[in-house]
Amino acid sequence: MSEVNGVSKNMTRIAVDAMGGDFAPREIVYGAVLAARDLGISIQLVGPPEIIQKELQRHKIDGLAIAIIPASQVVSMDEKPSRAIVKKKDSSIIVTTRQVSSHAADGMVAAGSTGAAAVAAQIELGRIANVSRSAIACSMPTSTDSPALLIDVGANAECDPHQLLQFGQMGSLVYTALYHIKRPRVGILNLGSEETKGTDLVREAYKLMQSRSDLNFIGFVEGRDFPMGKVDVVVTDGFVGNVALKTAEGIAKMIKLMLKQELLASWPGKIGATIARGSFDRVEKRTNYAQYGGALLVGVKGVCVIAHGGSTHTAIKNAIRVAADMADAKIVEKIEKTFSLATAGSGVS
Amino acid sequence: MSEVNGVSKNMTRIAVDAMGGDFAPREIVYGAVLAARDLGISIQLVGPPEIIQKELQRHKIDGLAIAIIPASQVVSMDEKPSRAIVKKKDSSIIVTTRQVSSHAADGMVAAGSTGAAAVAAQIELGRIANVSRSAIACSMPTSTDSPALLIDVGANAECDPHQLLQFGQMGSLVYTALYHIKRPRVGILNLGSEETKGTDLVREAYKLMQSRSDLNFIGFVEGRDFPMGKVDVVVTDGFVGNVALKTAEGIAKMIKLMLKQELLASWPGKIGATIARGSFDRVEKRTNYAQYGGALLVGVKGVCVIAHGGSTHTAIKNAIRVAADMADAKIVEKIEKTFSLATAGSGVS
Repeated sequence: MSEVNGVSKNMTRIAVDAMGGDFAPREIVYGAVLAARDLGISIQLVGPPEIIQKELQRHKIDGLAIAIIPASQVVSMDEKPSRAIVKKKDSSIIVTTRQVSSHAADGMVAAGSTGAAAVAAQIELGRIANVSRSAIACSMPTSTDSPALLIDVGANAECDPHQLLQFGQMGSLVYTALYHIKRPRVGILNLGSEETKGTDLVREAYKLMQSRSDLNFIGFVEGRDFPMGKVDVVVTDGFVGNVALKTAEGIAKMIKLMLKQELLASWPGKIGATIARGSFDRVEKRTNYAQYGGALLVGVKGVCVIAHGGSTHTAIKNAIRVAADMADAKIVEKIEKTFSLATAGSGVS
Repeated sequence: MSEVNGVSKNMTRIAVDAMGGDFAPREIVYGAVLAARDLGISIQLVGPPEIIQKELQRHKIDGLAIAIIPASQVVSMDEKPSRAIVKKKDSSIIVTTRQVSSHAADGMVAAGSTGAAAVAAQIELGRIANVSRSAIACSMPTSTDSPALLIDVGANAECDPHQLLQFGQMGSLVYTALYHIKRPRVGILNLGSEETKGTDLVREAYKLMQSRSDLNFIGFVEGRDFPMGKVDVVVTDGFVGNVALKTAEGIAKMIKLMLKQELLASWPGKIGATIARGSFDRVEKRTNYAQYGGALLVGVKGVCVIAHGGSTHTAIKNAIRVAADMADAKIVEKIEKTFSLATAGSGVS
């Protein structure tokens, strides 16, 4: 490890894969520098040292806690995750994960291939005892001040009811850690809100969740409920969650594109848009996924934030902030405690 | 049948359930009057005659082809569809459907309970030969000029691969009839675009569709692809389709709400919004589901359009237009022909 600057004792240490993402290494390094400077986080940038060193020269980093951790290989977006992780033992994503498993870092951030990051974290960190499946939780904007947390958004295309229950429990703990709301409202995503609707999977999960005193379970919710802020934690299998997440992204992009098209199509539109620019910027900020700091892989023995492949420096900085927040909130220990209690049978009301 | 006005010979005849929907009968009757007046469609309003008569008195209907078909009962939104349909033999939804099954009407429109309308149509009209399951197809706005058609958006929570193939075939025919595009691009909704991704269901459906010469199959598509206009017909099971549809609705509503909040929060916002009002109105129009005329129940032996529960007169008028267009395009006969060929084995390349 070539320490660039000093680290003070109580700083939270986050390992960052400098080589993952569409705009790596430039935007990753830039975001990491911002996190070190603005948030006082101790950063470990993982990748080929000469490349990272070159990028760091673009910034003023005197006095910042930024270290370089060498890794010689890179997993690209088009590699099959499971194969790449096994083959490339010295890839930046594996080395980043190892920083966490060896307790050299308190958490990690990786952009780029979600699959590769999830596989690496599952192998290197391992699952928390009694957790059936790790899942990806992602915050989404709503029309209210509180985001909604979707879990799972893609780690498990197929699930069983017990796994959905666990997603609800883990999601609830993560939501509290992220947004400081004590008993977040947990709902199961379904095609209708009536108890009788949907598949066996969601109906069985409904029964399991209904009997839990550790969950503020509000029943089935529909696709239109979470953007309106009617639920905090949205439980779903990874197939449905992924479609919901990407549909939301697509529709948000579509409406912004339509607005641009229609405003630019006339003089009143252009003038009005110029005058009201501040309002548009605030909507853009509220709906920009970069603000939410990426998705969290939950259920593994370590804090692992997976940022969007298209992450720029702001998204990376926010992802590092989320990783540090989750490490400080001791989310892994909280999930471990809940699931050890659950096994002892004391979690059921 | 109490004929209010005369019907000329070649007019398309659409039966409309006057009692279904949040704003029934007022908005339904209003929309039906507009369809008769502006589109020259022969309308059959189904429900208690005195109620419909009273609503009709609010409009100038001289010379319009509007008839009243008596039905004494109404199925409400909170009744279980299957039970209500069996019990209420003289309900407006059943009588509306019977107008089509008896060939007294060329198609039907019903707002209100989607489940009740689908069950009534399945029972009264019956399925087209060789169609495994009827499905609900719904048009959605995209950033381009052509909408995307999602099929199924809720009739079948669970499907098999062969049913998805049939949804693709029926959806393709419906898309051509609706938007006059000869070989619409058909994609299967999945959590990634690679062939190896997703569940057994979508991978098997992929194999089935790949071998068809009657489909312009483009492979897997993601939730963010259809709002961007990258696919015409989006094939999915009714659970995922319903979540995608409602998420899209919810996010569109959320962004419009945010825009309103932020524009009204400052003077420049208010002034800019006033000047650019025309542009906002055009975006509103492009994203307003009322423009798309509701969803189509496909696979049954008759044209059945199910309008949004919250339909106002514009949505009803457009739903009636879609029903008439589908009847004129002989969509039922086209599906019948395709599926009789498919059985004979000549549909496979």
